[in-house]
Amino acid sequence: MKLWDKGYKTEEKVDHFTVGDDREYDLVLAKYDVIASMAHAEMLAKVGLISKEESNALVKALHEIEKSIEKGAFTIGQEFEDMHSQIEFLLTQKLGDTGKKIHTARSRNDQVLVAMQLYLKDELKAVKMLTAELFDELLGLAEKYKNVLLPGYTHLQVAMPSSFALWLGAYAESLIDDLYMINAATAVCDQNPLGSAAGYGSSFPIDREHTTKALGFQTLKYNVVAAQMGRGKVEKYTAFGLAGIAGTLGKMAMDVCLYMSQNFDFISFPKELTTGSSIMPHKKNPDVFELIRGKCNKLQALPNTLTMLTTNLPSGYHRELQLCKELIVPAIQEMKSCLEMMTFSMKEMQVNTNILDDPKYDYLFSVDTLNQMVIEGTPFREAYQIMGQAIEAGEFKPVKDATHTHTGSIGNPAIEEIRLKMKQLLAH
Amino acid sequence: MKLWDKGYKTEEKVDHFTVGDDREYDLVLAKYDVIASMAHAEMLAKVGLISKEESNALVKALHEIEKSIEKGAFTIGQEFEDMHSQIEFLLTQKLGDTGKKIHTARSRNDQVLVAMQLYLKDELKAVKMLTAELFDELLGLAEKYKNVLLPGYTHLQVAMPSSFALWLGAYAESLIDDLYMINAATAVCDQNPLGSAAGYGSSFPIDREHTTKALGFQTLKYNVVAAQMGRGKVEKYTAFGLAGIAGTLGKMAMDVCLYMSQNFDFISFPKELTTGSSIMPHKKNPDVFELIRGKCNKLQALPNTLTMLTTNLPSGYHRELQLCKELIVPAIQEMKSCLEMMTFSMKEMQVNTNILDDPKYDYLFSVDTLNQMVIEGTPFREAYQIMGQAIEAGEFKPVKDATHTHTGSIGNPAIEEIRLKMKQLLAH
Amino acid sequence: MKLWDKGYKTEEKVDHFTVGDDREYDLVLAKYDVIASMAHAEMLAKVGLISKEESNALVKALHEIEKSIEKGAFTIGQEFEDMHSQIEFLLTQKLGDTGKKIHTARSRNDQVLVAMQLYLKDELKAVKMLTAELFDELLGLAEKYKNVLLPGYTHLQVAMPSSFALWLGAYAESLIDDLYMINAATAVCDQNPLGSAAGYGSSFPIDREHTTKALGFQTLKYNVVAAQMGRGKVEKYTAFGLAGIAGTLGKMAMDVCLYMSQNFDFISFPKELTTGSSIMPHKKNPDVFELIRGKCNKLQALPNTLTMLTTNLPSGYHRELQLCKELIVPAIQEMKSCLEMMTFSMKEMQVNTNILDDPKYDYLFSVDTLNQMVIEGTPFREAYQIMGQAIEAGEFKPVKDATHTHTGSIGNPAIEEIRLKMKQLLAH
Amino acid sequence: MKLWDKGYKTEEKVDHFTVGDDREYDLVLAKYDVIASMAHAEMLAKVGLISKEESNALVKALHEIEKSIEKGAFTIGQEFEDMHSQIEFLLTQKLGDTGKKIHTARSRNDQVLVAMQLYLKDELKAVKMLTAELFDELLGLAEKYKNVLLPGYTHLQVAMPSSFALWLGAYAESLIDDLYMINAATAVCDQNPLGSAAGYGSSFPIDREHTTKALGFQTLKYNVVAAQMGRGKVEKYTAFGLAGIAGTLGKMAMDVCLYMSQNFDFISFPKELTTGSSIMPHKKNPDVFELIRGKCNKLQALPNTLTMLTTNLPSGYHRELQLCKELIVPAIQEMKSCLEMMTFSMKEMQVNTNILDDPKYDYLFSVDTLNQMVIEGTPFREAYQIMGQAIEAGEFKPVKDATHTHTGSIGNPAIEEIRLKMKQLLAH
Repeated sequence: MKLWDKGYKTEEKVDHFTVGDDREYDLVLAKYDVIASMAHAEMLAKVGLISKEESNALVKALHEIEKSIEKGAFTIGQEFEDMHSQIEFLLTQKLGDTGKKIHTARSRNDQVLVAMQLYLKDELKAVKMLTAELFDELLGLAEKYKNVLLPGYTHLQVAMPSSFALWLGAYAESLIDDLYMINAATAVCDQNPLGSAAGYGSSFPIDREHTTKALGFQTLKYNVVAAQMGRGKVEKYTAFGLAGIAGTLGKMAMDVCLYMSQNFDFISFPKELTTGSSIMPHKKNPDVFELIRGKCNKLQALPNTLTMLTTNLPSGYHRELQLCKELIVPAIQEMKSCLEMMTFSMKEMQVNTNILDDPKYDYLFSVDTLNQMVIEGTPFREAYQIMGQAIEAGEFKPVKDATHTHTGSIGNPAIEEIRLKMKQLLAH
Repeated sequence: MKLWDKGYKTEEKVDHFTVGDDREYDLVLAKYDVIASMAHAEMLAKVGLISKEESNALVKALHEIEKSIEKGAFTIGQEFEDMHSQIEFLLTQKLGDTGKKIHTARSRNDQVLVAMQLYLKDELKAVKMLTAELFDELLGLAEKYKNVLLPGYTHLQVAMPSSFALWLGAYAESLIDDLYMINAATAVCDQNPLGSAAGYGSSFPIDREHTTKALGFQTLKYNVVAAQMGRGKVEKYTAFGLAGIAGTLGKMAMDVCLYMSQNFDFISFPKELTTGSSIMPHKKNPDVFELIRGKCNKLQALPNTLTMLTTNLPSGYHRELQLCKELIVPAIQEMKSCLEMMTFSMKEMQVNTNILDDPKYDYLFSVDTLNQMVIEGTPFREAYQIMGQAIEAGEFKPVKDATHTHTGSIGNPAIEEIRLKMKQLLAH
Repeated sequence: MKLWDKGYKTEEKVDHFTVGDDREYDLVLAKYDVIASMAHAEMLAKVGLISKEESNALVKALHEIEKSIEKGAFTIGQEFEDMHSQIEFLLTQKLGDTGKKIHTARSRNDQVLVAMQLYLKDELKAVKMLTAELFDELLGLAEKYKNVLLPGYTHLQVAMPSSFALWLGAYAESLIDDLYMINAATAVCDQNPLGSAAGYGSSFPIDREHTTKALGFQTLKYNVVAAQMGRGKVEKYTAFGLAGIAGTLGKMAMDVCLYMSQNFDFISFPKELTTGSSIMPHKKNPDVFELIRGKCNKLQALPNTLTMLTTNLPSGYHRELQLCKELIVPAIQEMKSCLEMMTFSMKEMQVNTNILDDPKYDYLFSVDTLNQMVIEGTPFREAYQIMGQAIEAGEFKPVKDATHTHTGSIGNPAIEEIRLKMKQLLAH
Repeated sequence: MKLWDKGYKTEEKVDHFTVGDDREYDLVLAKYDVIASMAHAEMLAKVGLISKEESNALVKALHEIEKSIEKGAFTIGQEFEDMHSQIEFLLTQKLGDTGKKIHTARSRNDQVLVAMQLYLKDELKAVKMLTAELFDELLGLAEKYKNVLLPGYTHLQVAMPSSFALWLGAYAESLIDDLYMINAATAVCDQNPLGSAAGYGSSFPIDREHTTKALGFQTLKYNVVAAQMGRGKVEKYTAFGLAGIAGTLGKMAMDVCLYMSQNFDFISFPKELTTGSSIMPHKKNPDVFELIRGKCNKLQALPNTLTMLTTNLPSGYHRELQLCKELIVPAIQEMKSCLEMMTFSMKEMQVNTNILDDPKYDYLFSVDTLNQMVIEGTPFREAYQIMGQAIEAGEFKPVKDATHTHTGSIGNPAIEEIRLKMKQLLAH
């Protein structure tokens, strides 16, 4: 059954090409289609397009479908093109003509839109919570290994003393930036598109403010053409948000892979989180972190793919907008699993506490010594030359004693301030 | 003169390859480097690293440099690698040893960062204002041509009645979404990185809260490693923001190019905004809009380029981060000129007010007629079949009278509500 | 069973995260793993690392596995990480210690590589054949509708006379360009990586020239580190090839969608290839072409995704290289289905043969009239002015008679020459 | 002066927006415009559209312009939109009406195309030569440091013995792959588009075979619409070619940056190629290699930018195609400077010959020991377990003696075979 069926059979080839794996993604979205349908039914009664009894019957039947979805019992038959057809079929099977009335004053276009936006709102919230969990884990570790020093690199060259508190705290604070983007994406999704129908509204006297309130949207996407333009755009903005977090996670995974190498040997992970080889007992392959890095790079490429799909399309619906589903749904799952896996793994990190004993890190402290001279009155450029000569003459002795005190430095990594910044953002 | 000069001459070839056009972009950023330097000098005095007199002298000299920048008189000599060296040279030339002291407790790395973030904050604000101007222009036009109908398309097929109020208002409301992203990018930039030095802070007892306040930053990027990680990230987040607006503008430009084609003939522009040919007098080539579309597509590719540049780099500074400048600075200029050009051009739009007289648009109203039947009691699916048969029998007569009334529809394009939504966002 | 199992159970969570859907893609590659294993077994016997009998037994058992793959009976159990473990298990189950010997002198790394390259070679050939079929279809149609004129557009403005022979022939000739890229990708894949083991070769005296010949590779990737670097690169180069074809197909699909719009009405397709609505009988939604356009845009974004995944990775194997499989395998299937669908659909194209009767196309011929004046002796710029004045005075009468004769023009679309160019490329 | 000037002044604002920096890129292309114009003039005489005398006069005047270009004396005045207008002005100034005749039977569209394709052919050849030089340098170094061993990494974990011959030879052989792509791009560019005029040919009886031969093109792009479609496509295919090389160079630069770190310390470069600090005398910042890496990442993002610019554009010329110039011209210069800089720098590489003395590399040889057991008859899986136990019991003694002999391995890096492969490609 096709909604647009006119009595002839479309070639199966065409069907396979056009429907593809769409039913699979619709299973994820079906819950939201049902929720939006309930609000729609109630609104139809409110404005008198259907009777109160019809509305009640529709809402009741939709609740049952919702339950079957929650139980995992809902499926989309091969004879149905999508969740919308399947759900409408179930309603009509149960309620006859009343079932058919659910389609009054809407179109599959605004149905997909509203379901997608409700889904994205939920998932963006989930992503935010998982990010906050990783944030907490990182700051906990920063606190725990506060006094363990690390070499800090510039140009991958040993440069200045750093610490685990700085390294871990940096990724935590950086995640806050990423949540600004997630919040912006949420705001874009949090505008009710229902009622835009095929993109140009309808001649029915519907009450869009009612469904906005019922569905918990912050506001309406007022203009119906603007609402339709949301297709592709809500997914792209969500992808921008995911790409931000992925950039931070991917970079952190790269650090971890490097720091686990025998050439750094700063940290380690238990057997359960690495792969190895009994004839190369030293090998602890950081597969989990390499895959986080790789999956995050895929996620970072996603905004571009969505942009490529939608750019230069004139306004109005085009069928390929449907392909957004197969791009965004798995990406969100991948993002969530990367966040979970990172938190899960970092908990197990084992830290080498004597890293700076290695003489190759001796010069880390030369800048501090220089600064001491400046504090004692020598102009910077002069102190710089004196130091340089001392070092060239082999007269430099490192004092491995980093007494940085300013906000955000080794001696004062501002963990509480960073925690507070996150708290304020989450409260927002 | 190189800051790291040790008495040998670096090969000129290397110099050309590494410095490139950097001085050109530094001219744009120099103003912000000077402003940050003033705050830095005051802070150095406050914590006792230099005397009050030295601080005053430095601030005064920096003010003079600022004035020369404003007058366009400031240049960066070929013997200087960048603005930082040039400015420090000027200070030292004027103030001797005191001039050298400006470099105390900072590094070129946090100097570039703070200048870039101040610059981006200013430019993001400018982009926001230009977007608001375009928004106003579009809503003004939506109001003006409120009653002029347009065909609405789905699949590029004539589908449902639309209007100029819907078409123009849609782009206006869509720009609001884009400003959520601009606000998020601004929040990311609005965190003081000064004091992070080469990315690991310093042993000087600097007061980062002081410079944060003096420079008007909302907050600090507390963790110094996090601050350093801002390089590449503040530019990338700005690029996300630009890409959002560019997506909206590019789509609108595509519509304009299509609607100007003889095959649509919905709108036109005066000679000054088009190119033509005297032997093809009908030709009105929409060069301006094609270039907006193309430049916006370039802008939409920018986040990807910045991501490619920075992905998989371990933490800490790497020299290629400097290449961010040559990507983001011209992009911002391009974004601003696209916004200005769009506003400037749309003002001149000439509208064909009789579009729907063409019989090819007759079926636009078939859905409304169908809906009327539904309102009068026929179930949707049934009405659908009756209508279909009437049309096939050639008995359908279009009633070109769109009486849509719901929020956001032809009869109620919600211009004031959209205006209010923008107002709230801008007030935020 | 994991090849690197050392007696402890890896957390299931980790397992799920690291293995993912890999088994699914391995089912596609398994055939090639078996083929490569046969060549490897024979080579091991040739150099004396196993006996002739052992080799024969291995080859026989592998043949049986090959048959089960062809019949669709081969599966990869949940207890096996990948096809390699599953196949080795089957061999050992059947042949005991002899089965284990297949792993001598190779590693999963070169196993994946050789299987992937054999697979890509086959698929690139299939893509080439499907492209050649579309090419033939297009040139057939160009021949058939040789004399039907179309308006030619510049800036989407009506400009000069064109024809179906030019329009369709252009896409055909453009596909030849794309096959140069496919050939280059094939050349990159056509170099035997087997014997590179984990990326650094092995201490066994293997004969790589033997397997090269046995597997039908053009040459070896000699250097074992270079061979390992092929991971990610062979997929990326294949993706470049696919992106080229996708660019051509996507553009053609855009033209088709435009030309099917009521505003152009140049071509049409039967019901089976479009979707519609009985109340909007004029609607013929070009879903198939919109999806070709969308899928091709996804394909055009693929090289970027693969580049993002692999850029800035130091040399040597990294676990995320495994993610290339899930990117390239479905992409190839998508490319093939787009090619098939385009050929299948174009066969059904219905052409409007009276397009130029519409007076909006009258000025199409003004340039030809101008040229006639030039041929008769008037300098171009002067003729241009005379014509312009005639048109402005309303004295221009179009002579709808395009007598273009030069190679590649309306009157001489060079169909045979284009056919020959393709023939030469395919013979190569 | 605008070619399409009709007596009114276009707003300067529009002019600035539409012309942009185009004149700058036209200075690079002007030489090729002149060359193509000479062939065009000769052809016009051949087919009788101008006289032999006129043709001679035009060719002579064009030769003079060519000389002024070679001397760097040619400029494009602000009153001219592009090189074409400037050159035509010079011809008309000198030859009067004859000068104007050069524009017969062509349009700026095919002028840009033919100039761009001639330019790209030249530059692709230059890129190929620079790649061959780097290839030679790398193989020379591979030969020189043939016996110096390196640790080989998998997952960034110390894994197996490698060597400088393998490491350097791998990049050399990998560059051969990249040249297959460059050759494909060259083939795409090597098809004469001249005569396609504005994209639909002309009514003049021009001889396109003549200009094809005169300009040294391999063949024609026969179909004029196909020729026009080359805009954007020839640049994109060139970008694919550049991206291939950039991928190889970027990866190599990443290796160099890593290997120069104190944590690896495998190689070093003289002061002239690094930056440092006198107070951190150990620091040798690999700025050149970091910039090669960054510039190559920008180049790897280029195909995507060009695709974004052109995707979903219907057939026919659009003004934004002009933006391809500002993307491809600087990219080619950047590619060439990266290749030169890599060759120039690698010549200076200093190698640490005692790398493997460090005990952290001891386990590198465990696999070889295992293999020896297998050669002596123990099945692989069994030998693996025996070895593993020996190692766990602390009884393993590394024999640092890699006797790999097969093609492409440490003992036989196949330098001559790789050299031959390149030779065959270059001869092609």
